[in-house]
Amino acid sequence: MKAQAAGRLERLRNAAAENGIRTFLVRDTASIEWLTAFDGVFDDEQAHALLVTPHDAVLHTDSRYSGAARKAAQGEGVVAVDDARQGHGEWVADVFTARHASAPAGSPAPESIVLGVEDSMTLAAFRALEGALAKAPASPQLLEISGFVRSLRAVKEPSEVARMKAAQAITDAAFSYIVTYMKPGMTERQVQIELEDWMLRHGASGLAFSSIVACGANGASPHAIPGEAQLEAGQCVVMDFGARAHGYCSDMTRTVFIGQPDARMRAAYETLREANERVEAAIKPGVTGAQMHQMAEDALAAGGFAGKMGHGLGHGVGIDIHEEPVLSPRNKEPLVPGNVVTVEPGIYLEGDFGMRLEDFGVVTETGFQVFTQSTHDMVIL
Amino acid sequence: MKAQAAGRLERLRNAAAENGIRTFLVRDTASIEWLTAFDGVFDDEQAHALLVTPHDAVLHTDSRYSGAARKAAQGEGVVAVDDARQGHGEWVADVFTARHASAPAGSPAPESIVLGVEDSMTLAAFRALEGALAKAPASPQLLEISGFVRSLRAVKEPSEVARMKAAQAITDAAFSYIVTYMKPGMTERQVQIELEDWMLRHGASGLAFSSIVACGANGASPHAIPGEAQLEAGQCVVMDFGARAHGYCSDMTRTVFIGQPDARMRAAYETLREANERVEAAIKPGVTGAQMHQMAEDALAAGGFAGKMGHGLGHGVGIDIHEEPVLSPRNKEPLVPGNVVTVEPGIYLEGDFGMRLEDFGVVTETGFQVFTQSTHDMVIL
Repeated sequence: MKAQAAGRLERLRNAAAENGIRTFLVRDTASIEWLTAFDGVFDDEQAHALLVTPHDAVLHTDSRYSGAARKAAQGEGVVAVDDARQGHGEWVADVFTARHASAPAGSPAPESIVLGVEDSMTLAAFRALEGALAKAPASPQLLEISGFVRSLRAVKEPSEVARMKAAQAITDAAFSYIVTYMKPGMTERQVQIELEDWMLRHGASGLAFSSIVACGANGASPHAIPGEAQLEAGQCVVMDFGARAHGYCSDMTRTVFIGQPDARMRAAYETLREANERVEAAIKPGVTGAQMHQMAEDALAAGGFAGKMGHGLGHGVGIDIHEEPVLSPRNKEPLVPGNVVTVEPGIYLEGDFGMRLEDFGVVTETGFQVFTQSTHDMVIL
Repeated sequence: MKAQAAGRLERLRNAAAENGIRTFLVRDTASIEWLTAFDGVFDDEQAHALLVTPHDAVLHTDSRYSGAARKAAQGEGVVAVDDARQGHGEWVADVFTARHASAPAGSPAPESIVLGVEDSMTLAAFRALEGALAKAPASPQLLEISGFVRSLRAVKEPSEVARMKAAQAITDAAFSYIVTYMKPGMTERQVQIELEDWMLRHGASGLAFSSIVACGANGASPHAIPGEAQLEAGQCVVMDFGARAHGYCSDMTRTVFIGQPDARMRAAYETLREANERVEAAIKPGVTGAQMHQMAEDALAAGGFAGKMGHGLGHGVGIDIHEEPVLSPRNKEPLVPGNVVTVEPGIYLEGDFGMRLEDFGVVTETGFQVFTQSTHDMVIL
């Protein structure tokens, strides 16, 4: 963990320096979790602040978390922990003031220092920081910036890939199990509860997101909430789910069939599979998210399902279920080795049925390594 | 639902008018859920904006949600739904511009209109709004305000109380079940998974929060994460959990004993119970959160546990698990009928054991009606 935190903080410092930023304040908990490499310390609360300077990094947290954080930091000397009882804004101002007062001669003047902050923080937190710095005897310039640590997190290390593969192994196993459990007459919600419980009892520390189980016409809504609709013969069922393990998410979707599907469903599924596999064979460093999205749209159109996807082809995955980069028309940047993305083409026919086939994997030096091991063949129950 | 949404929007408009605000932009999803009274439309994503004017209310959302939102709004005429494909900031600017252009003579000048926004939105969303309004031909003044809709949500309606009682009934039943399941040698995590699965299979639509199951010295950390520690004779086990039902949370904590507790644990538990019950008997309109917190601290100190709580006595509960008002030293405002709060004194002895006893209920015209039905007697397994 020591080497991980040191390496990640160094990446942040280098990127900050390129942007003329000397000190960076991180408020997003997932980014703090990544930068500190502290395991099992944080939950969903945005209750922390990490101040990264050229020389050190200090986590400001409260007494609920400081014990675990100190334990995680023990002996590392990379991240210090401070649980001073004050707001994060006041804390930053106090730290800055104290350091300025004791700075050796020749140090940069306080007002020449640029303090970078991410605009994902709340407006209230930003105003508190502005207010505290305005009252301080010396204060830096504030620079607002978007997606700064998120762009660093978009390039995964081998240890992060290993964690996501472990999370996906649980998810694949859950799929193998749930297809033996599903029967006509069960509700979507019943299948969801069983699926999630299975993951939690087989190694998942939590869920990557609330699972989707959508049968019949409900499958035509990409973000359906599982309800009391019952599985019936002739339907297909979209299941989109993922385990969380070792702090990282997995994400997969399979569409299965209750009894023999009709010719139209078979044709749709073949088209969907073609779209998925064509993209997975094409991903490599240098292609863009926009190109991969278009390739899937073209494959869907060739099968007669033009314009029936309606969402982006994929997204990054990591500590958060939605990370950078995305495979969508708005991403004109080339993919690079270490990007972990989903490939999830969908076909949605309103009032009729929906299908999605989603894997995820990592961009390698030469192509795309898929983590998902479950079959692309039609699964007919 | 129509009457609910209309009533809540009216409360918002009145409160806004008192603050010189003509139009209000709501971005917090829980607040939008409350104001629209749309059931089963929203999830955790902060993907929506609700613009409330003196005459109407319009929800701006995307295609993933607009179908369900239109269905929920059907025939109401209270909340309109718009899924224009643009950012919320641009959307607000466009709506404002269009309305200004078609406004009848004698309408207020655009620059005299105050648009209220809550500072819980992200800095990025605020900057996007500012930028879009700056480009618009006519734009209002922006007024940043804190906790505006949250303060309205702090006073619950009978229908909200009914939903929380239903959520608590599932939670009480889960407690009755889990004490029959728990055995020495089980891990905290195993108990947590079983407890949560039981709630989900018995009517909960989700969890109010990730449950705490903490045995032995782990119980001395108020926010312990359940892990591989095993239940042992002589320990006490803190369990803090809640179901979500009909969109509302419940929240309870019980501390149970594995085998006969020693005299010190018995003394601590009696003190804890006294602190809980003294406060629950005292809560009524007019008392302050600070007074109730102090009453609990005094009861704990009288039993020999001064300064061993370390957190606030309680918090509001509703659509969110943490709402207003709080029972803590910082709340000097009197409680009013309709406030729903937890009462959760704790005793934490580092390296030794911890205990907490938490109910929740509603402030009535004359006192406090507790929702939690589980016993305060010692539960010895």
